[in-house]
Amino acid sequence: MDVIKTVREMRAFSNAARLKGKTIGFVPTMGFLHKGHLSLVKKARAECEVVVVSIFVNPTQFAPNEDLKAYPRDFERDKELCEKENADAIFFPSTGEMYSKPLTFVEVEELGKVLCGKTRPSHFRGVTTVVSKLFNIAKPTHAYFGLKDFQQFVIVKKMVDDLNFDLELVGCPIVREEDGLAMSSRNKYLSKEERKKAPVLNKALSLAQEMFSRGETNPANVRQAVIDRLSETGCKIDYVKLFETESLKPVEKIGSGNAIALAVFFEKARLIDNRVFE
Amino acid sequence: MDVIKTVREMRAFSNAARLKGKTIGFVPTMGFLHKGHLSLVKKARAECEVVVVSIFVNPTQFAPNEDLKAYPRDFERDKELCEKENADAIFFPSTGEMYSKPLTFVEVEELGKVLCGKTRPSHFRGVTTVVSKLFNIAKPTHAYFGLKDFQQFVIVKKMVDDLNFDLELVGCPIVREEDGLAMSSRNKYLSKEERKKAPVLNKALSLAQEMFSRGETNPANVRQAVIDRLSETGCKIDYVKLFETESLKPVEKIGSGNAIALAVFFEKARLIDNRVFE
Repeated sequence: MDVIKTVREMRAFSNAARLKGKTIGFVPTMGFLHKGHLSLVKKARAECEVVVVSIFVNPTQFAPNEDLKAYPRDFERDKELCEKENADAIFFPSTGEMYSKPLTFVEVEELGKVLCGKTRPSHFRGVTTVVSKLFNIAKPTHAYFGLKDFQQFVIVKKMVDDLNFDLELVGCPIVREEDGLAMSSRNKYLSKEERKKAPVLNKALSLAQEMFSRGETNPANVRQAVIDRLSETGCKIDYVKLFETESLKPVEKIGSGNAIALAVFFEKARLIDNRVFE
Repeated sequence: MDVIKTVREMRAFSNAARLKGKTIGFVPTMGFLHKGHLSLVKKARAECEVVVVSIFVNPTQFAPNEDLKAYPRDFERDKELCEKENADAIFFPSTGEMYSKPLTFVEVEELGKVLCGKTRPSHFRGVTTVVSKLFNIAKPTHAYFGLKDFQQFVIVKKMVDDLNFDLELVGCPIVREEDGLAMSSRNKYLSKEERKKAPVLNKALSLAQEMFSRGETNPANVRQAVIDRLSETGCKIDYVKLFETESLKPVEKIGSGNAIALAVFFEKARLIDNRVFE
């Protein structure tokens, strides 16, 4: 497995694969890999001839008050995990290699202003900008994103369509701990006490699905029940929203294929989770 | 020569060329081709194995009050001209093929707000967005832009660097009529009377260069002389600016490699021109 640190070398690697007509499966990550990330690498490995994982904690998607410095990092462990999954290359650039007095931003309007975008107004602009850069550098035929970051997936999908990136975007299901907590690098921020409470996100989403299965289609009723369930733990709610999955617009009546997403704050961790109604 | 109207077919054309390791020279235009455009096609033909010209009057770079509908079009003539220059393909998509409820914009901050960006605040955002799309569709190894749109070239160059587009951007010298008027599709808007006056743009720029050659380095003095020269014709001045060519920031003292750009309004035409000081 190659560890590639420069844009020039990453391009050379991908250009060589492309010239042989090979498919390139790409998994962009911020590192500190968990089973969620590895499920993406596994899927890329199963579907593509060449697999590239990028590890880059992207500063432009963090606001000044957010956890850029504290964000967990462990490259040696990440490298071992990628090797175990038979990735062909890790792209591991420095911040200086990726950004040199940048002035250019890629922005998906409207979709980035709701849900997580309300609390993190510049976040998705940072995501779409770095993902555009990574697509141009790694030149994937397939790109794999986890559906835990549901809004991110919807926004990147719209960007791929709007800017005509010639690749297939693959959304992969949320991977959970045994007690239902969605895998996240930020779970590391939870105290022992909070970690015990954190499965409430998934439990509240299950409650929403149960209500819908029993015939409840009023989003306000489901939302209130979810808020009540979350509140039992004392966590602070950022948002609970029911929405249409392409436009991210609120639904008036819940239907199959609509989704519910939520974000809550524990002391040091902001956690998110979501569920598509079945 | 192929005339290609869909994104799917254009990608297939370019992917096939790329798979053979061929260089692709790309000339994005809004059609109504003149000798300026054709100089780009010639240069692409001389330097690349495959030459693609795009003809697309891009609505997102026109403001509502601008000349989108009036913009001159003549596809059959353009096609003949491209054939004569031995282009391999014209990409000629419809507006619907290029845009389907788009929400995504590519924007280069700061550089797009000065010079022409003051009068046309959303113009460069439209340019960088469509150029990003065209790059992703036509997949050039080399892209050719005229230096008459000097600010456009600087902005696209910054975008290419910032977003890591893997291509060489080639800026080509301004092509002029015999009397010095820079070639432009918009010259068509000039009345017979105005057409006689229009070479004043080039004459005023020559005056600026002469002053610099004689040792004048004060931008205010040069600017005033240029304004005086332009004013003799009764045209309305949009701007006359002296600036550093990478940052587009005003210069305090003119040096070799700095530039002067100007934009003036005749009744129906807004014309631009520029000169790099030697």
